[in-house]
Amino acid sequence: MVCNVVRYSKNNQSQTGWGVLFSETIFPLSGDYQSTAEFLNEGKEEALSIDPSKKSKNTISLFEVTLLSPVTKPCLVLCQGANYREHMIESGMNPDDKNFNMFFNKSAASISGPSDDIIKPNHVSLLDYEVELGLVIGKNITSEEKISRRNIGDYVAGVVIGNDVSARDVQVPQMQFFKGKSYRSFCPVGPVLCLLSKEELSYLDDLELTLTVNDELRQQDNTRNLVFKPDETLTELSQVSDMRVGDLVLTGTPAGCALRIPSPLVTKIGALLPEKTKWKMFKKTQGRRSQYLNAGDVVRATIRSLDGVVDLGTQENRVV
Amino acid sequence: MVCNVVRYSKNNQSQTGWGVLFSETIFPLSGDYQSTAEFLNEGKEEALSIDPSKKSKNTISLFEVTLLSPVTKPCLVLCQGANYREHMIESGMNPDDKNFNMFFNKSAASISGPSDDIIKPNHVSLLDYEVELGLVIGKNITSEEKISRRNIGDYVAGVVIGNDVSARDVQVPQMQFFKGKSYRSFCPVGPVLCLLSKEELSYLDDLELTLTVNDELRQQDNTRNLVFKPDETLTELSQVSDMRVGDLVLTGTPAGCALRIPSPLVTKIGALLPEKTKWKMFKKTQGRRSQYLNAGDVVRATIRSLDGVVDLGTQENRVV
Repeated sequence: MVCNVVRYSKNNQSQTGWGVLFSETIFPLSGDYQSTAEFLNEGKEEALSIDPSKKSKNTISLFEVTLLSPVTKPCLVLCQGANYREHMIESGMNPDDKNFNMFFNKSAASISGPSDDIIKPNHVSLLDYEVELGLVIGKNITSEEKISRRNIGDYVAGVVIGNDVSARDVQVPQMQFFKGKSYRSFCPVGPVLCLLSKEELSYLDDLELTLTVNDELRQQDNTRNLVFKPDETLTELSQVSDMRVGDLVLTGTPAGCALRIPSPLVTKIGALLPEKTKWKMFKKTQGRRSQYLNAGDVVRATIRSLDGVVDLGTQENRVV
Repeated sequence: MVCNVVRYSKNNQSQTGWGVLFSETIFPLSGDYQSTAEFLNEGKEEALSIDPSKKSKNTISLFEVTLLSPVTKPCLVLCQGANYREHMIESGMNPDDKNFNMFFNKSAASISGPSDDIIKPNHVSLLDYEVELGLVIGKNITSEEKISRRNIGDYVAGVVIGNDVSARDVQVPQMQFFKGKSYRSFCPVGPVLCLLSKEELSYLDDLELTLTVNDELRQQDNTRNLVFKPDETLTELSQVSDMRVGDLVLTGTPAGCALRIPSPLVTKIGALLPEKTKWKMFKKTQGRRSQYLNAGDVVRATIRSLDGVVDLGTQENRVV
């Protein structure tokens, strides 16, 4: 049975704790862990040992707490671009080419809780969503590693839902993705950190992702359609980055974002225009798309296996 | 008088220490600091109190030690692109537009010592250099801050030389800069961390940078030509990223890299080509440029004020 860990605050925000969630009941852990790394290093065994069939006086109802991101800051948030087959095809790329695995970063400052508001900065008009499977690192990586399906459990402690919220009118014209994806509240994480045992790691290839905006389905895909698989991605990432226990790797988003990537033809024509004209047209054309997020919109994201064994819960964030 | 701090190893690599460098003599500090943050929080006062005119039995000759990066990992390495007037002009941009301040990350894994080898990965052929002034953060920043010339000393503890080594054949075709700039050894830092007092902060606007390859001058410019000044940069960065004591901000490189940025006309023509053809041509054209680094090349970088008061020393790295 998978183990779903939550981090929560109760009564007032200064009082936080870690626990294991079964249905709507939290079984609190005894330790007061200051970070995800501390929890994984010191509290994981206790979490895995909790048996929900045994009565406990100390349980808390899910409705008495506010859930926090189970990934704490500071940490690295390493991200992949264009990593689902369908999303690559709609972006004018051929997923079978597997030309390169695109990496970039979000700031840890962008991390927020699974029910926190997404704050749209005043200067941003093209606010977009990207549901993604997040891998939480379980072992320090400080040199190049050969990570395979067989040993990935040594490196990945568990998985979370992440939403790679993006200000397209900053991200796209400014070329480097970091800024437009890093405003505070632009990375809701959680509700649960699902610890996967070695036997359960095969679920990494069979998780269904969905994202709705105001109950309208926008994104739906399955991790079996990932172009670069988690083991390939971590192997290549280890060539260019250290990773520490508690760091987060977001594995890319499926098709269905608000951003409509222009056709190769339009891109070629656009390239002939002066920069200012090109981006003015980009903003104007994209601005007509009703899919972009506005204040009051409610974004819900889920990730689960079709057999119901792995269920990372539902993230629900209102845009303000 | 400015205070130049060094981190070094002696005899064997496991024995490291911190000290203050005067001419060719190191005055060791009493504390055994595990990180730059620990040094800045606990050892800075001792460093500032050292008076080289007083005899000390404990001094070490610079030639008895190996200097290490005075910025320790893990840390953030936040970077700016196209931030010198001349470099923007050669890149086909107008610096007076100040359209946007481009941010991206290098991995902390890329950090290496001021005399370490730069390791060219086998698959990389277009290896380039970028001398940059690095700001070392002196105060935790976890929310949006208004940083000005007046208060920048509260946020910046000191400055270092950084070389933003770049694999252009990875960086440019893969669009996001993180990977091509993050291979291990791609960020020599040091030799010194120069602590700037509030009175000395005006030197941030008047530091001369040079970079030579095999004694041939390739880059030379002055921080007075920075398009976005350190205070503006940190203000904007604080909107999208937390920064902690000991984190590093590289402020962009002057003109003169090996990379020849194609003219706007060539870029427009290139955009009409299929992706594969375009990048094949890019690699072929760039490959003809003898300025790219090869095994055996020696890269030297310096940063100092013209009046000689601030001198960050010389970084010397061999390509292998």
